[in-house]
Amino acid sequence: MTRALLDAASTAGLDTPAVVVDLDRVDARIAAMAAVMREHGVALRPHAKTHKSLEFARRQLAAGAVGLTVATIGEAEVFADDGVRDLFIAYPVIAAGPKAGRLRRLAERCTLSVGADSVVGLEALAAALGGGGGAGVAAASVVIEVDVGGARTGVPPSVAGALARRAVDLGLPVRGVFTHGGHGYVGRAERLSAAEDEVTGLTAAAESLRGAGIDAPLVSAGSTPTAELSAHGSITEERPGTYIFGDRQQAFLAGHALDDTALLVASSVVSHGSGSGFVVDAGAKILANDVAPYLPGHGTVVGYPDAVITRVNDHHGIVGMPATSARPAIGAIVWIAPNHVCPVVNLVDEYVVALDGRIVDRWPVDARGRNG
Amino acid sequence: MTRALLDAASTAGLDTPAVVVDLDRVDARIAAMAAVMREHGVALRPHAKTHKSLEFARRQLAAGAVGLTVATIGEAEVFADDGVRDLFIAYPVIAAGPKAGRLRRLAERCTLSVGADSVVGLEALAAALGGGGGAGVAAASVVIEVDVGGARTGVPPSVAGALARRAVDLGLPVRGVFTHGGHGYVGRAERLSAAEDEVTGLTAAAESLRGAGIDAPLVSAGSTPTAELSAHGSITEERPGTYIFGDRQQAFLAGHALDDTALLVASSVVSHGSGSGFVVDAGAKILANDVAPYLPGHGTVVGYPDAVITRVNDHHGIVGMPATSARPAIGAIVWIAPNHVCPVVNLVDEYVVALDGRIVDRWPVDARGRNG
Repeated sequence: MTRALLDAASTAGLDTPAVVVDLDRVDARIAAMAAVMREHGVALRPHAKTHKSLEFARRQLAAGAVGLTVATIGEAEVFADDGVRDLFIAYPVIAAGPKAGRLRRLAERCTLSVGADSVVGLEALAAALGGGGGAGVAAASVVIEVDVGGARTGVPPSVAGALARRAVDLGLPVRGVFTHGGHGYVGRAERLSAAEDEVTGLTAAAESLRGAGIDAPLVSAGSTPTAELSAHGSITEERPGTYIFGDRQQAFLAGHALDDTALLVASSVVSHGSGSGFVVDAGAKILANDVAPYLPGHGTVVGYPDAVITRVNDHHGIVGMPATSARPAIGAIVWIAPNHVCPVVNLVDEYVVALDGRIVDRWPVDARGRNG
Repeated sequence: MTRALLDAASTAGLDTPAVVVDLDRVDARIAAMAAVMREHGVALRPHAKTHKSLEFARRQLAAGAVGLTVATIGEAEVFADDGVRDLFIAYPVIAAGPKAGRLRRLAERCTLSVGADSVVGLEALAAALGGGGGAGVAAASVVIEVDVGGARTGVPPSVAGALARRAVDLGLPVRGVFTHGGHGYVGRAERLSAAEDEVTGLTAAAESLRGAGIDAPLVSAGSTPTAELSAHGSITEERPGTYIFGDRQQAFLAGHALDDTALLVASSVVSHGSGSGFVVDAGAKILANDVAPYLPGHGTVVGYPDAVITRVNDHHGIVGMPATSARPAIGAIVWIAPNHVCPVVNLVDEYVVALDGRIVDRWPVDARGRNG
């Protein structure tokens, strides 16, 4: 079980609910993932949608990340504004409407890679980037998205070569192939098989590109549960995001305790309700509403192993406990490890940054809400 | 089935995903609820946590609302800054730490009512407001929260009088009792019984106050599913929130079609994936992740009655469809009625405001993220 991130005096001055990060733990997590990737000889391109923060991105880049992964043009704009020069939008962007100009301006000021999984997507990219066949296309590369079992976006590996060929014909340089083994979030066994699916599927996709006469350097896999497991064979890059903080799902999937979780939600007990549990001021508007089939409820309450957050309403977290267990006093501050950290960060304007149990800074969630 | 909120030309210029509201429909909804409450002789105090917007609050007040309900001190601060003079924080606020001074400053500049369901809460309020027994307490009133079956916060009705007596002894004026019949969100039959639970429970609570020698004017119920149903008998006020826009849950619970839903999420089809469905750029970071036991999936796609949003990831909405149904083209903009509108609004910085199918303005979500 993890511990509170602030000492008693700092906790007493905190306005709840708040997202608190322990900087030592974050730095240890950044260093550990960087070391694992170095050891495997695989490039690390962290997904910045988890933290959406310039400060955390700088720390990842300083630790050796080759660039950042983002999910949207809006996120890319925020990091490009801060001087990040190598960005990969790992998403099948449709560069139509206002997105066309935004993508072109972005490509003019950084080394940009953009995902694609359809001819329509490629044609929009080519049009947006000033191409349409041949010269004049701005400096953005295409990375073909492959579905290796996640059943979300991406083409089957065998089709990747044909789509890459179409990109080249449209004047778009092809950098390689990527996937997200999201089906590894289903459970521990699935985590292992999803990692192997990433390797097998991406290897086949890279072969499909070579078969189409395209020799592209990038073979990029990515998800925190699978990152270390798939960093071998033909894989050249990993894109984990959640590893920077960890959360309840990640700890379960990795079979770890919650000991080193680097982000917790500090919340106040506001009521004992009418049952044997209690109610906190952290509801769905800070804990989000993500649930996992393998975890009961909406988060772990530090120091209360019997407690289950059975329900979250907008501003209420309803915590169930056996009547025989002692519950925290009304007014007490309790610490919650959320199920999934990405939406939590996106619900607040700032991180409370802690070091050695004290608040040392507050950092904005710079790319919060940049959904498009 | 509802329709798109923008005409083709305006839709083409939209950057997705975006939260779009139809102002005519909003005004009709505001007027209809105001008329119903006038007819019942019950005051209307809309819950502003749904819209978190000064513009929408002004329209509700202009239509006759007696003031606003909010969930947090932070929301109250935003509306007080705009000149709203009558605010009810319908939440068992624990006015400790930084919240003590914030609450006192708020009480100094508006007519403030604050929920309480514990002695600890009352003592913190009295201390924060400069009380401690008798004179000197700032102008804030206490409203005792009662649990009528929602199993969240609130005391049993029979205990309300004793708690109110304690408030008076602490120098805090007691304005009355309130509840939220949240168990009406479970299904249609439960909606009807939750409304009756509100009336029965609040009537008993008001009697409990009179038994304790406290004659307080306010008997306040509140939730959109129950608002019209419980606006009778001893009830003096209703606090619905979601009615201003409507959503998929509300339409189902009321047995209505989605025709007059006033807020939709515009999103782009980014992929056909590898199945028979499609993927949109509206995921959990704009649709949120609320599900209801009586509704499949995460939202209704306008014009695609066979479609079910089977899964939302951060930036992906995965839509399932029978292979025999025609799906929208990649790049097409589709309109989604979300399950629950409150968290959706809280995930964006602005409303795209439409009238007669055209974009006429953009309004900020002024109190977005004001969680504490």
